[in-house]
Amino acid sequence: MSAPLPTPTRVAIALGDRGYDILIGRGLLDSAESFDGLPAAPCAVIVSNTRVAPLYASRLREVLAARHARVLQIDLPDGEAHKDWASLDAIFDALLAANCDRKTLLYALGGGVVGDITGFAAACYMRGIAFVQVPTTLLAQVDSSVGGKTAINHPRGKNMIGAFHQPLRVIADLDTLASLPQREVAAGLAEVIKYGPIADSDFLDWLEGNIDALLARDTQALAHAVRRSCEIKAAVVAADEREGGLRAILNFGHTFGHAIETGLGYGAWLHGEAVGCGMVMAADLSVRLGLIDSAYARRLKDLIARAGLPTVGPALGAERYLALMRGDKKAEDGDCRFVVLDAPGRASVRAAPDAVVSAVLAAHTA
Amino acid sequence: MSAPLPTPTRVAIALGDRGYDILIGRGLLDSAESFDGLPAAPCAVIVSNTRVAPLYASRLREVLAARHARVLQIDLPDGEAHKDWASLDAIFDALLAANCDRKTLLYALGGGVVGDITGFAAACYMRGIAFVQVPTTLLAQVDSSVGGKTAINHPRGKNMIGAFHQPLRVIADLDTLASLPQREVAAGLAEVIKYGPIADSDFLDWLEGNIDALLARDTQALAHAVRRSCEIKAAVVAADEREGGLRAILNFGHTFGHAIETGLGYGAWLHGEAVGCGMVMAADLSVRLGLIDSAYARRLKDLIARAGLPTVGPALGAERYLALMRGDKKAEDGDCRFVVLDAPGRASVRAAPDAVVSAVLAAHTA
Repeated sequence: MSAPLPTPTRVAIALGDRGYDILIGRGLLDSAESFDGLPAAPCAVIVSNTRVAPLYASRLREVLAARHARVLQIDLPDGEAHKDWASLDAIFDALLAANCDRKTLLYALGGGVVGDITGFAAACYMRGIAFVQVPTTLLAQVDSSVGGKTAINHPRGKNMIGAFHQPLRVIADLDTLASLPQREVAAGLAEVIKYGPIADSDFLDWLEGNIDALLARDTQALAHAVRRSCEIKAAVVAADEREGGLRAILNFGHTFGHAIETGLGYGAWLHGEAVGCGMVMAADLSVRLGLIDSAYARRLKDLIARAGLPTVGPALGAERYLALMRGDKKAEDGDCRFVVLDAPGRASVRAAPDAVVSAVLAAHTA
Repeated sequence: MSAPLPTPTRVAIALGDRGYDILIGRGLLDSAESFDGLPAAPCAVIVSNTRVAPLYASRLREVLAARHARVLQIDLPDGEAHKDWASLDAIFDALLAANCDRKTLLYALGGGVVGDITGFAAACYMRGIAFVQVPTTLLAQVDSSVGGKTAINHPRGKNMIGAFHQPLRVIADLDTLASLPQREVAAGLAEVIKYGPIADSDFLDWLEGNIDALLARDTQALAHAVRRSCEIKAAVVAADEREGGLRAILNFGHTFGHAIETGLGYGAWLHGEAVGCGMVMAADLSVRLGLIDSAYARRLKDLIARAGLPTVGPALGAERYLALMRGDKKAEDGDCRFVVLDAPGRASVRAAPDAVVSAVLAAHTA
């Protein structure tokens, strides 16, 4: 037997009766303690995908079988292209076919796509049932599994159909990151890097010193990155659960990024890749609006490039970019609005003139 | 010019920052006062159907045009058979195609189907936008437009996919009831009658004395019926918004009724017809469980028959009924649960043995 694993880190999301814990550590997936205190509903349903399920579902099933009389499993097709109504309805159909009642507990086992779909299915099934996030990608552990944003994509726009629905717990097992394709490690690092410029300059410094260790999946480095990311996200979400204002800063790089994803067709670029490139654009926009100096934007771009992420966007044409971004959820009265950096470690949401945005696009698309 | 209409009745739903008013009266649809205090968003969208829109949409458009820079309109196909994902997606597609942002205000103009779909679309579009109910059927005015339950049907079960999402206001214009087919007046009366046995014996007495006036659409009788129904529903919803317990009594007759609707295929029977017949079954179940005497059940059945509603259910077979009811949202651990009458004017939710339920079905199906 190997040595006992260290006690997991616990980050609390302070949302009153919707509050919950994020557990971060090794070997959590099939440790009974990870599930202590969750409702022992008669029926649990693991929602995963065809890539993740063969790796981890049987271990999760085993630990859940001790807690629930029935454990069902639904494997969705893998990838952002399947974050749609067809996948959502596949969950509803399986739940109804198995007579799953309102007390049924869903477990989202996978990355951001699985988590977002499963959370939205939980939000809507019989007008709302409970769910638990078991994120197995870096991106999901540091961002998408935390905070209760759930959604599916619409052909006309990313994450356009969804709900705020908080999970009962997030169980982030760092050991699952070992099986990630390298491209997904890089994509996850985009959302990690994000937290530096919007909220924590010290964390950006730390990332510059540890990016190679993170790419090499050094467990201690990953543990720190996941924990600090979750702490920052927890603080922002606790202050503004339903994105009345502050929470929008978590979407730094996402207005440009979503335009890339929707414009190319979902799945062509990974979400984190689009966000990485989008942060380069958003930082340059901040420079052109006179908010930060170009050295800071360059520093950020260098880190994004070192993470193995694209820094040049696809040539969709400025008009197409602008049209897609005018449909963004932050847009108001037909004006695009962007998360910009007001200073190192501080962000806000602002409108920007089309001419300035076009200049940014000209500078950062191939 | 006709004489000025009386001041509308206002019934408040006490739900804190989700609280709102139900306005009940004549000529409300195109009275500017009905809309006072609602947000003057740049964009308003009327969601209606192909039967109601030609009757009332232009009047609503006119009054909204004075409040909103853009007023769009979406006409869904009519009927319960279209309370599905295709209709929901038609709304999403139209909103996205028109770049409708998060401040967009939806107006549901029509009956229960339009209200339920529009409310669910509002719950999910960009993770939640505001909406107003403008119910034009008796059923919608006394029941479905009030209380924030929204949903679409699934082929395997009625209202299985949905959300709790409260409207900003309910504007119930009694004049719109003049255009209702008689069959829909009767269907609406089913939900009116419901409030007597579950909550208000005096109201049941009043209904017995006024059922003919209601069927003849006497405005004063309708005004009283709508108001008293909304008052009872408002009190129940304020006490239990998300159906943790008490609210389930509003589903008296609905477990049997939903089985009829799903079993026959949506739209074969109107929802109110299925509920009328379902109440006959639920009352008989209450008798067989020893809760009320048979004279009370007979009295209720007579009133339902006088309203022009069916009192004999379709011959789906007891097994099919039971299978459908085991999938009901109130079911737990595979046991059907029913709203039963504990006494005149008082209801609760209980499980019942299959044998007793089968006897009820044998007695009340053709």
